[in-house]
Amino acid sequence: MLGETLKKIRPLSEEYAAKAEMRLDNLTKPLRSLGRLEEFARRLVMITENLMPELGKKAIFTFAGDHGVADEGVSAYPRVVTGQMVLNFLKGGAAINVLARHAGSEVVVVDIGVDHDFGEMNGLLSRKIVRGTKNMRKGPAMERSKAEACVRVGIELAEVYAGKGYGIFATGDMGIANTTPSAAIVAVLTGRPVPEVTGRGTGISDDALQNKIRVIEDSIALNKPDPQDPLDVLAKVGGAEIGGIAGLIIGAAAHRVPVIVDGFISTAGALIASSLEPLTKDYMFAAHNSVEVGHRVMLGKLGLRPILGLDMRLGEGTGAALAMLLIEAGLKIYREMATFADAGVSQ
Amino acid sequence: MLGETLKKIRPLSEEYAAKAEMRLDNLTKPLRSLGRLEEFARRLVMITENLMPELGKKAIFTFAGDHGVADEGVSAYPRVVTGQMVLNFLKGGAAINVLARHAGSEVVVVDIGVDHDFGEMNGLLSRKIVRGTKNMRKGPAMERSKAEACVRVGIELAEVYAGKGYGIFATGDMGIANTTPSAAIVAVLTGRPVPEVTGRGTGISDDALQNKIRVIEDSIALNKPDPQDPLDVLAKVGGAEIGGIAGLIIGAAAHRVPVIVDGFISTAGALIASSLEPLTKDYMFAAHNSVEVGHRVMLGKLGLRPILGLDMRLGEGTGAALAMLLIEAGLKIYREMATFADAGVSQ
Repeated sequence: MLGETLKKIRPLSEEYAAKAEMRLDNLTKPLRSLGRLEEFARRLVMITENLMPELGKKAIFTFAGDHGVADEGVSAYPRVVTGQMVLNFLKGGAAINVLARHAGSEVVVVDIGVDHDFGEMNGLLSRKIVRGTKNMRKGPAMERSKAEACVRVGIELAEVYAGKGYGIFATGDMGIANTTPSAAIVAVLTGRPVPEVTGRGTGISDDALQNKIRVIEDSIALNKPDPQDPLDVLAKVGGAEIGGIAGLIIGAAAHRVPVIVDGFISTAGALIASSLEPLTKDYMFAAHNSVEVGHRVMLGKLGLRPILGLDMRLGEGTGAALAMLLIEAGLKIYREMATFADAGVSQ
Repeated sequence: MLGETLKKIRPLSEEYAAKAEMRLDNLTKPLRSLGRLEEFARRLVMITENLMPELGKKAIFTFAGDHGVADEGVSAYPRVVTGQMVLNFLKGGAAINVLARHAGSEVVVVDIGVDHDFGEMNGLLSRKIVRGTKNMRKGPAMERSKAEACVRVGIELAEVYAGKGYGIFATGDMGIANTTPSAAIVAVLTGRPVPEVTGRGTGISDDALQNKIRVIEDSIALNKPDPQDPLDVLAKVGGAEIGGIAGLIIGAAAHRVPVIVDGFISTAGALIASSLEPLTKDYMFAAHNSVEVGHRVMLGKLGLRPILGLDMRLGEGTGAALAMLLIEAGLKIYREMATFADAGVSQ
């Protein structure tokens, strides 16, 4: 099923780029003067192959999962916070709820790997593949079949929401300790040294940062993930929510839906997706430049330029929600501005 | 009247900053993890001296004026476009209309110096101080009394709109050739060489850029504006819309209303305002980093860090409209997020 989906992903069409540019160049503004807003509109036309695209309904997918490696003292928060924050999402009190409302987007909360039994809860999509990963310092975070199942969850969600007419997706994450597997993934997939791509996450001390680096180095040395095999990397030093995000991006590309990639953890998912199929990159928008070191390395590897730089480092999809407002601004410019001819303005 | 208004401007209170931070630090997110969004909220609390501020109604003021120096071939567009674009604003077809709608803001179009007789037009505020400035390469752009009258227009608008309960202002401009006086102002007020602060505006050729630089150098040499006297600079090498913008900023600060400064031309107005009263800077938000060279120099002089960097160079208030969305996002975070105690999340 993963292979089938990957095969559906097609390159973007330059023909649509040219058509979008023709319209943009006739709007009542100096040529190219709206910079990246014009780039956003052009890419939406290319992705959707629609000369007058609409975003319609919007969804931010916040995937939640726990991490066995939290036992190694790599986070400033206790593991129980993952489940508590999921409940906060469902009640609408978290940052992602506030910013999604501001952007006119739904938040789809997905339990893909939380170590807590929520039972049936209104608004929570239960797609639990693991009850937290295992401690990767002592062995693989999860079996390969589980990693693949996580990716499948994301692909299926993309398919369902594309089918319901959602016109844009964004990724988000919640998982105490998840900057640790994300840093491991970027180190393995880019070949960069662990200290260069490992940051303070929720805000750990200097000593805790040195410990986190050792934990990641040990985990990679022990598990020997194969950089040529993204599912092996995801299974051995990754996490459930990261797999879900990778799957969502793959599914978005297969269904020609633009997808906004949030910060550090989401971009780790994007690296997995682009390692499986490089064409997925054409469907991604990089939301922002996270404070987390290593994010820049990831974006460089993907060849993506972030939209915002607001010194954020929260995750959940918060950067993506803000970027969604700007991408939509670009589309509105494209759709709603008068042309020189319409407005009787000298060109 | 200008002196009276300047005297009303007070420094921001650190007491309110501390109170805002206390609330921000209790919201369900890692400490300071929302970066500049938190900074925006804190500054809105400081400016309004209200622990739970609301933006309420929002207004982007787009001041339009013509420039005698357009005769020197400094722009890619003919002078008649200023009036044509004012009509486009009134019909809702320009970029600023689209982006203001997206941001939930009104656009207040002010004819402060257009060389066209609009008569009575629905939605146009007629505050014409000049019918275009004079060609500054041949003498002062306007008399000192006219420059002061332009600033007064801005102050009065700020007063009226603050009185009507508008909670945030933004500046914008329309005026063919107005990057030329703006570059002249930044050169005079910062002492930087003209070629360093002069750019391509709407998109002129290399030869036209060299001509534009000579025109600005000649104008400064001829008129000898006094860098210690901002009204002298505005009169000799400025423009009507730049004066209106300076006045709006001064009026905003006097009435404790936050004001978003758009790009190159607006920031020239902000330089005039801050030269008259440095405390005005505390009330400004710099919307974005314009492509126009010289903008960075201005922001450095003001000590402001731009919110966005989207390679834009259009003016009208377009960058400010987008920044408004992000400042409002910061305020919503502050107002709407659950605290750790409310949400039962471990801190």
